[in-house]
Amino acid sequence: MRTQVAIIGSGPSGLLLGQLLTNAGIDNVILERATKDYVLGRIRAGVLEEGMANMLVEAGAGERMRREGLPHEGFDLTFSGRHHRIDLHKYTGKRVVVYGQTEVTRDLMDCREKTGGVTVYEAANVQPHEFDAEKPYVTYEKDGVSHRLDCDFIAGCDGYHGPSRKAVEGKGLETFERVYPFGWLGIISEVQPVSHELIYSNHQRGFALCSMRSLTRSRYYVQCSLDDKVEEWSDDRFWDELRSRLPAETAEKMVTGPSIEKSIAPLRSFVAEPMRFGRLFLVGDAAHIVPPTGAKGLNLAASDVRYLFDGLREYYLDKSDAGVDAYSQRALRRVWKAERFSWWMTNTMHRFPDTGAFGQRMQEAELDYLSGSDAAQKSLAENYVGLPY
Amino acid sequence: MRTQVAIIGSGPSGLLLGQLLTNAGIDNVILERATKDYVLGRIRAGVLEEGMANMLVEAGAGERMRREGLPHEGFDLTFSGRHHRIDLHKYTGKRVVVYGQTEVTRDLMDCREKTGGVTVYEAANVQPHEFDAEKPYVTYEKDGVSHRLDCDFIAGCDGYHGPSRKAVEGKGLETFERVYPFGWLGIISEVQPVSHELIYSNHQRGFALCSMRSLTRSRYYVQCSLDDKVEEWSDDRFWDELRSRLPAETAEKMVTGPSIEKSIAPLRSFVAEPMRFGRLFLVGDAAHIVPPTGAKGLNLAASDVRYLFDGLREYYLDKSDAGVDAYSQRALRRVWKAERFSWWMTNTMHRFPDTGAFGQRMQEAELDYLSGSDAAQKSLAENYVGLPY
Repeated sequence: MRTQVAIIGSGPSGLLLGQLLTNAGIDNVILERATKDYVLGRIRAGVLEEGMANMLVEAGAGERMRREGLPHEGFDLTFSGRHHRIDLHKYTGKRVVVYGQTEVTRDLMDCREKTGGVTVYEAANVQPHEFDAEKPYVTYEKDGVSHRLDCDFIAGCDGYHGPSRKAVEGKGLETFERVYPFGWLGIISEVQPVSHELIYSNHQRGFALCSMRSLTRSRYYVQCSLDDKVEEWSDDRFWDELRSRLPAETAEKMVTGPSIEKSIAPLRSFVAEPMRFGRLFLVGDAAHIVPPTGAKGLNLAASDVRYLFDGLREYYLDKSDAGVDAYSQRALRRVWKAERFSWWMTNTMHRFPDTGAFGQRMQEAELDYLSGSDAAQKSLAENYVGLPY
Repeated sequence: MRTQVAIIGSGPSGLLLGQLLTNAGIDNVILERATKDYVLGRIRAGVLEEGMANMLVEAGAGERMRREGLPHEGFDLTFSGRHHRIDLHKYTGKRVVVYGQTEVTRDLMDCREKTGGVTVYEAANVQPHEFDAEKPYVTYEKDGVSHRLDCDFIAGCDGYHGPSRKAVEGKGLETFERVYPFGWLGIISEVQPVSHELIYSNHQRGFALCSMRSLTRSRYYVQCSLDDKVEEWSDDRFWDELRSRLPAETAEKMVTGPSIEKSIAPLRSFVAEPMRFGRLFLVGDAAHIVPPTGAKGLNLAASDVRYLFDGLREYYLDKSDAGVDAYSQRALRRVWKAERFSWWMTNTMHRFPDTGAFGQRMQEAELDYLSGSDAAQKSLAENYVGLPY
């Protein structure tokens, strides 16, 4: 089999890239290790920057998001028992859209089916080859049979654990990492969200986040120890802990119910450089991980796709290598700024076991300064809605 | 002897407080451990916030500063070999004034002499007493004779090593500290400054600062190891190191000459809480130290004087305890924000031996983001010119 762009991974970045390429008349094939249902079962991020929302529309997959997504013009920070609203729209003229990654994936899959894009599910042992040379290819197995996909370029949209980054280890790959000394315990519950906007809470018992998937489905998190086990957290214990970390008037309004999902995720920052190795590109989580505090993970994958798609379009339509050659540098410049923001927001909102008395006061001073400064709030807002591509 | 306000320490904060009190008709006596010449020989800060400059004028001691001080409307950050100007005036409508602490001290001393204020120099073993009760007093020795100064209030303007903070240890005093793993090697030289504005340089060899005292007197610093000795740094070595940390076009313009002062200072952050113990107030360095990176030390002493003078004026003229009672809380709120800014700017501009690869990239991302964001530059500018009192 031959295609122009082989895409490894059918998550939102692979699907979005594939759809933009298809619409531009550039042939592509997606190879996905898992089943379609497995991919759709993954519960991930839920806050889209305007830039990413616009890309979904550009790809022709934005209709349901426009209809069902919840535009948010601000969010709340709570600390010292008080709420402070960050007015995203006032400071930036932009909004974010609350719309689950699962829905984004579903819409892009539907779109891909309609436009005849090829996705190979349950492709085992996917492996990129010869991307240092002119004629790269990808091998994989399907139903026990070995296959070879020849291509011009390989897009590694296969996440942190995928084969693409592994294939470039030892070839000049440099990695940067920070592991945070806590995790997030998250639940989903079919109850009305406590607030129509997100609430990020800094509390002496630890960070909490009140988010949502829809007007009837809440997504809540509390900072927990990395030693905690999900089994130790009954629904009652979770709700009590969440309420204890919110201002009283908010805790009192909280509607509780059974959780339909409950899990603990570690937090970490990770970047791999460069993001291009010859004709192989690393995209999204394959190249970088952010702690979820700033809601940047999915959006950063989308900005990678923006730069890569523009490069590939220039390559095929304008016969120019410039955009492809600039991909790694362009993408990384935005990646590092989003890493910085996610690291800053994580540092500012969580309790760190080893921060010491001075470090704790620095955090409190940061929040006190932020809540009184238009410039600081604008800086937060412009990062939260997404820096320009 | 009896006075209304006993001031310990004849540095700029004690002198400024004394002058404002004298002008308001509130009797005060300054007790100073050293000689007048010794106090005038201390070389310290040199960048005044507009708020502090206005207080000097309000005190009647601003005439020479207005004439000889250099108003600065911006400064340069350099990193990755490039200059980025931070336009203080554009973002805040304010300026800072380059005018040495020694000159401030001299002007305030002259003013105090003219208005008949009493300063006791070479007052040994100064000790505050009974400030928990209604009738505090200060004891000291002068020329071998013991003296007692009765008063209503004691202002501890006696610096980090003075007796005021020591007198409140064990009385609910809480302290917060961070020591940085490097120092500043600073020189003064009678040469024209390399630029008419300050240059803060982040370089892989370490931080450097090009500052000045006047149009013919330069004040330069390089980050050094805490193990370094002044004797190891010849003038030639200093100039070579400074130039190596600046963009080439700046290094080439550097006029060098013999140093007339050369010293190494450690950097640290320190805060003592509260700043009031009954009828004793801690003011300036007695309560807090900042690393010099943000030029906040002297200015923070001035804002303490602002809150304390306003409180004492209300006490004597309006017969209200409110301002005196609020002193510690008001002062500390601004202190912590200035501590945060000084810590942030120190973190952002220096090389840290133990920061690791990820931490180093966070610093670079901070500077890259800063240089492209109006909001971030405005935030830096509003802190640099001084947050409102």
